[in-house]
Amino acid sequence: MGDFQAFSGKQVLITGGVGFIGSNLVRRLVALGAQVTVVDSLIPLYGGNLFNIDDIRERITLNITDVRDPFAMAYLVRGKDYLFNLAGQTSHLDSMTDPQTDLDINAAAQLSILEACRQHNPGVKIVFASTRQLYGKPEYLPVDEVHPIRPVDVNGINKLAGEWYHLLYNNVYGIRACALRLTNTYGPGMRVKDARQTFLGIWIRNVIEGKPILVFGDGKQLRDFNYVDDAVEALLLAALNPRADGQVYNLGSREVVSLKHLAQMLAELHPGARFDIVPFPPERKAIDIGDYYSDYNKIEAELGWLPKVGLREGLVASLAYYSKHQQHYWDAT
Amino acid sequence: MGDFQAFSGKQVLITGGVGFIGSNLVRRLVALGAQVTVVDSLIPLYGGNLFNIDDIRERITLNITDVRDPFAMAYLVRGKDYLFNLAGQTSHLDSMTDPQTDLDINAAAQLSILEACRQHNPGVKIVFASTRQLYGKPEYLPVDEVHPIRPVDVNGINKLAGEWYHLLYNNVYGIRACALRLTNTYGPGMRVKDARQTFLGIWIRNVIEGKPILVFGDGKQLRDFNYVDDAVEALLLAALNPRADGQVYNLGSREVVSLKHLAQMLAELHPGARFDIVPFPPERKAIDIGDYYSDYNKIEAELGWLPKVGLREGLVASLAYYSKHQQHYWDAT
Repeated sequence: MGDFQAFSGKQVLITGGVGFIGSNLVRRLVALGAQVTVVDSLIPLYGGNLFNIDDIRERITLNITDVRDPFAMAYLVRGKDYLFNLAGQTSHLDSMTDPQTDLDINAAAQLSILEACRQHNPGVKIVFASTRQLYGKPEYLPVDEVHPIRPVDVNGINKLAGEWYHLLYNNVYGIRACALRLTNTYGPGMRVKDARQTFLGIWIRNVIEGKPILVFGDGKQLRDFNYVDDAVEALLLAALNPRADGQVYNLGSREVVSLKHLAQMLAELHPGARFDIVPFPPERKAIDIGDYYSDYNKIEAELGWLPKVGLREGLVASLAYYSKHQQHYWDAT
Repeated sequence: MGDFQAFSGKQVLITGGVGFIGSNLVRRLVALGAQVTVVDSLIPLYGGNLFNIDDIRERITLNITDVRDPFAMAYLVRGKDYLFNLAGQTSHLDSMTDPQTDLDINAAAQLSILEACRQHNPGVKIVFASTRQLYGKPEYLPVDEVHPIRPVDVNGINKLAGEWYHLLYNNVYGIRACALRLTNTYGPGMRVKDARQTFLGIWIRNVIEGKPILVFGDGKQLRDFNYVDDAVEALLLAALNPRADGQVYNLGSREVVSLKHLAQMLAELHPGARFDIVPFPPERKAIDIGDYYSDYNKIEAELGWLPKVGLREGLVASLAYYSKHQQHYWDAT
């Protein structure tokens, strides 16, 4: 797909760059010759894990701070050609038990970052990592970008506000910005300690630890998944293409699978793995969205993105990674 | 319309109750025999004006505080049967120059109020004053509740988040809440010092002061208007009807007029009044939405609301009110 040589020598800022998708993006940009500055808060409950950037630590500028710090961000956005804005609170459940923190990070800090750009670097191009969560429970499938917006949790509402601030600053102030609405993304570097980032993390951990995967409900809920390399490719394409300015794009996958089928795939790929179908915990049932998968024709047509890594291939790579590096991702029990 | 005797003896909390719509609602509820507690911050740039409640001051409990104060709100929500949640930052322009304050009031404080209700008074019924601003530039007219949401300013994004928190707390926690998406509301008690609350305020002031009304653009932009008594009626109906729980409703009017026509009406009603059609100031053009008027069939069908006060009648009442009480609403120049 992309000819990404344009990133060579460019100044790039990545918020959430020690996290899952961020660190994979950092690695790719370093390989492309970009001058990368990474911002991460390293809040223990979030996605940042220094092992994610261990191999490229000496080739980047690492700045530990919180995107909620407006003075730090005002300094850090200066002089950058690209800003990949990936820092966020991702846990749906945490957004319900501590809604104000979710708001501070996913909405208030985004506004503050955009104000920093408006004041100190209006020429920057911003790519914001948004989420399919803001569609809520689908009215139709696959879900395209004109599907009604109806978040079912505080996280969805705040992420939406964060996304719209970006589009607004594009439209009103001409600060080039676009948003990718990511679906379930997985792969090396994701948080697997718990389900705060993705349920697939804890599934993979359980498989490796020999514990059963817990499939909630009847296991028939449909989902789509992107391997992290494909998500990174989309972020890079969106950064370089002026057609993306002011736009939102769904990511997605041709492979739509039920959670039960996904559990079966994992069980086949890892000897001894097993899964149990169990009732929904009530706090999860309250914010469950049923079946979901995306229509990603828009990004395919406009930016030329297509997911390339098949689900089986991605799961094999993920299982291999966490089997090898588990000591860096959870305390052995 | 409504039989509002059900409010007699009830405990009612009204945020923004010294402001325009709030104070009219307070007066109506006092007349209905409710025990009314009024919360207002009296921030000078907002809608609160103590003269608005001068005639009923001794019949209410007045608590001056800011809805951003979570401890005050935790105390104030206790024991209330109804909460009319009207406090807000309403200026579109101010939301662009100071986006964080708009976020704090229109989004963060709303979440904090809902958390206070969840923890201290989950049985309360909440009616939230939302706005047609969140539809942005209409894709079709009249705009109904399924019209796409596309705010064109920070205020619209934050008001939307505030609205959705209410619906979410209804759906997830069973705290009964609904939202009315108000269109242009006018009448006695509105802020007329400037255009922070409604452009019609400054128009009426200019008419009374013998200054020309400034009509931006070509004057052909269509709008709908509700006299404040009709908006109050809708708030009361929404509070009493369980069918409203979890719903949003547009308000609107049968009378759709161009801004030029509205200026002509005012000029006819007040001897010596005149208007000028002038180009848009650039900061207003950037967030202008073109024509707008609502489809309000949903609230008519479900709650039995209809606007009753005609535009001419409402303008006459407004001109009379501000001619008589101008010293309480602006410093004579």
